[in-house]
Amino acid sequence: MNSIELRPIGYVRTEASEEQIKIDRRNVVSTIILSEGLKEVLDGIEGFSHLFVIYYMHKISEEAFIPKVHPSGRSDLPVVGIFATRSGHRPNPIGLTLVKLLRRRENVLEVRGLDALDGTPILDIKPYDPIDSAQGARVPDWWLTLHPSLKA
Amino acid sequence: MNSIELRPIGYVRTEASEEQIKIDRRNVVSTIILSEGLKEVLDGIEGFSHLFVIYYMHKISEEAFIPKVHPSGRSDLPVVGIFATRSGHRPNPIGLTLVKLLRRRENVLEVRGLDALDGTPILDIKPYDPIDSAQGARVPDWWLTLHPSLKA
Repeated sequence: MNSIELRPIGYVRTEASEEQIKIDRRNVVSTIILSEGLKEVLDGIEGFSHLFVIYYMHKISEEAFIPKVHPSGRSDLPVVGIFATRSGHRPNPIGLTLVKLLRRRENVLEVRGLDALDGTPILDIKPYDPIDSAQGARVPDWWLTLHPSLKA
Repeated sequence: MNSIELRPIGYVRTEASEEQIKIDRRNVVSTIILSEGLKEVLDGIEGFSHLFVIYYMHKISEEAFIPKVHPSGRSDLPVVGIFATRSGHRPNPIGLTLVKLLRRRENVLEVRGLDALDGTPILDIKPYDPIDSAQGARVPDWWLTLHPSLKA
């Protein structure tokens, strides 16, 4: 299989700038507008408080793939492979974010916590359930340096 | 944007049958073999105990999209939109699974819990961290009926 063709099922709309999203994405409220024809695929999604949003980072060209990086560009942290990070400079620039579902109206979802820019194409949406979390998951020291409030 | 082209970065190898994966995927051990050229993207991934694997459900043709279903095909449960479920019959047949990383050797990952069939193309791999889990997430009653051991 040489290439896989997917279609955008909708787009992100947000007034938040790239800078705001970078600094405070967990409080950013965004709207996901699905294609009109996809309205009924959302029926019952309101039963879940959280969703995974899978999107295409359209501002990152595929030529921008970088195999190894300093996490979050911080030169005091060790260089690691791109798959040990969430950086967008991946072979396939796919984004994955857990968001809180605030409201659904027909083909429109209002969510909090999405770190996708205005105009981002959406590939898929999945309901979040307890099987999607790992108790006592281990992360590297550099990750804890980046997120000191989450140290055990 | 009419279509998005992605490339497989590697493939799943597993001896488990579709039936075994359906019944007991959390104990299934699989191997993910990345393209040789992508070896170094995995450097440092061993620091994480769990990963998200994003893959393309190649056995499900895109014509197989079904807007609404009974969850897990159970007619005693209410019909819901496909995005309220993890069914593969989605507009873009993308799979997302949280797995345990057992071992990495160069471009090869051994993982437990992947519900992808042998030969499945991999699109992306992301490290799992505590920000990917939601405390006290709400799920619908039908989900708890399917997973009685997870009732609060």
